[in-house]
Amino acid sequence: MPQIIAVDFGGTNIRVAYFPTAEPPPKKISKSPTRASEGPEAVIARLEKAIQALIPKEHHDLRIGVASPGPLDPTRGVILNAVNLPGWVEIPLKDKLETRFGLPVEIGNDANLAALGEWRFGAGRGTNNLVYLTISTGIGGGVIIDGRLLIGAQGLGAEIGHTTVNPDGPLCGCGQYGHLEAVAAGPAIARQAMGLLESGRSSTLREKFELNETLTSKDVGKAAQAGDELACEVIEQAGEYIGRALSDLAHIFNPEVFILGGGVSQIGSLLFEPIDRALRSHIMHSAYVEDLRLLPAALGDDVGLIGAMVLVSKG
Amino acid sequence: MPQIIAVDFGGTNIRVAYFPTAEPPPKKISKSPTRASEGPEAVIARLEKAIQALIPKEHHDLRIGVASPGPLDPTRGVILNAVNLPGWVEIPLKDKLETRFGLPVEIGNDANLAALGEWRFGAGRGTNNLVYLTISTGIGGGVIIDGRLLIGAQGLGAEIGHTTVNPDGPLCGCGQYGHLEAVAAGPAIARQAMGLLESGRSSTLREKFELNETLTSKDVGKAAQAGDELACEVIEQAGEYIGRALSDLAHIFNPEVFILGGGVSQIGSLLFEPIDRALRSHIMHSAYVEDLRLLPAALGDDVGLIGAMVLVSKG
Repeated sequence: MPQIIAVDFGGTNIRVAYFPTAEPPPKKISKSPTRASEGPEAVIARLEKAIQALIPKEHHDLRIGVASPGPLDPTRGVILNAVNLPGWVEIPLKDKLETRFGLPVEIGNDANLAALGEWRFGAGRGTNNLVYLTISTGIGGGVIIDGRLLIGAQGLGAEIGHTTVNPDGPLCGCGQYGHLEAVAAGPAIARQAMGLLESGRSSTLREKFELNETLTSKDVGKAAQAGDELACEVIEQAGEYIGRALSDLAHIFNPEVFILGGGVSQIGSLLFEPIDRALRSHIMHSAYVEDLRLLPAALGDDVGLIGAMVLVSKG
Repeated sequence: MPQIIAVDFGGTNIRVAYFPTAEPPPKKISKSPTRASEGPEAVIARLEKAIQALIPKEHHDLRIGVASPGPLDPTRGVILNAVNLPGWVEIPLKDKLETRFGLPVEIGNDANLAALGEWRFGAGRGTNNLVYLTISTGIGGGVIIDGRLLIGAQGLGAEIGHTTVNPDGPLCGCGQYGHLEAVAAGPAIARQAMGLLESGRSSTLREKFELNETLTSKDVGKAAQAGDELACEVIEQAGEYIGRALSDLAHIFNPEVFILGGGVSQIGSLLFEPIDRALRSHIMHSAYVEDLRLLPAALGDDVGLIGAMVLVSKG
């Protein structure tokens, strides 16, 4: 059985873990800031340092799995254009790490690998067909079909956050309009709440809004949980959009389970209930939803590390 | 190598073919009317008669593959609820045919099997990832991912026609609103043209419209090819909807090729050009479309038979 170093990095943190066998939990785990503004060379040097610190003195069949922001080419192991990492354009990360460590390296899109982790060790255990969404600053996706990760011809598939739910909707971070991410990710929830506050609606969010104007989706979620009407309405609307998108995805993938992760999903039942309602009310045939489950992600912050471990554990 | 009887039936015709080896062309082919209004027992009797007529006297490893309207459960071989076949609810067609002939039978959704046929022997040859759409009275879909047919947990996946392109759009045949099928299939094209004619717009379609009011998408396609402005506008609008849907599907599947079949696709470049334009203008990153091809289906009326043959040729 291989020993595995798993890496999960993004715009904020670098996390590295050592798995003595191909299953959780990791034996050691480290966390350090990415400092993305210093550019790819500096970040890669920090990645290498963090990996080196966790390589055991004696090892056998040691492999490195990396969960990275995309879009990326998992076959070549090249980061094409990481959205939250300035300067990361066409970075051959796999080659760089393989050269540095002399170990096999595999790289995957972080949301894809989170799906892989949830499937093997989390909320999707025991299924063969699942769709995973991570809802936070953006909306990422991962899809398991018949026990295999969907990646597509160039490894760019499963971008569920970038499907159109409202053709007349707001600008998405990707440059297109009306994508699910543009209407239901954290920033969209915050923006929607601020829009209602600007229109003069009363809310417990008003004080914070008038003090500094930087509401987050977490603020909106908390206010909703405390019964704030405006906040509830905003969360309900986001849930409605997500549920409609899931009905389309049910028609496309006919999965056994939808798994929702990411910070926004932690709003919990106030978000899950409208999602479930919209999903069921927009489905074309009851056969799609009879055995379909909608579940929160189970692996928490370690999901990317576990997914990266699963990625390299095979073959 | 197996010998194969392939069956393709729908609301109008029953087609049966005999393939002495697992590749086209078939050696014999027959066509007869379905007479769907007579109900499932009568139709199944006709299917059995048509199959019997093509079974060779001497055979070895003979198998039967069936392309059927869905939704259906390909694992159990049960037609759940065929939309254009009155009375076809929970019909165990696989069991019935296996009992009748003592031969192995496999059943698949007709659009799924068309995708399989185009992949192995048609416009998708040599690729591993393709998305197929058949655009006629409805819009059916089939998806090949990494060389395997997407069917989903209960075999209900790949229903690409039933994804939302306009949440405020018209009623779809499935009972939901604003699906691609509801805005871009044949009846939607005809309805759109009639709407513009009712509003008083001039068009070469007006004469036929005022005589009997039953315009078809074929009429609209022909008028567009002859330069009719109203007809061109309607085809362009349908193409725009299809292209937008394809951009979402590119983000989801990252395919090498989109293949369009079905009667409406025969409108040709007047439809393909706006599809291609909308696809490219709504894509989130050029990497998705750099090597992506948009092709007309290549197998014509035999696509369902060839797909049914491919389905049972394995294993």
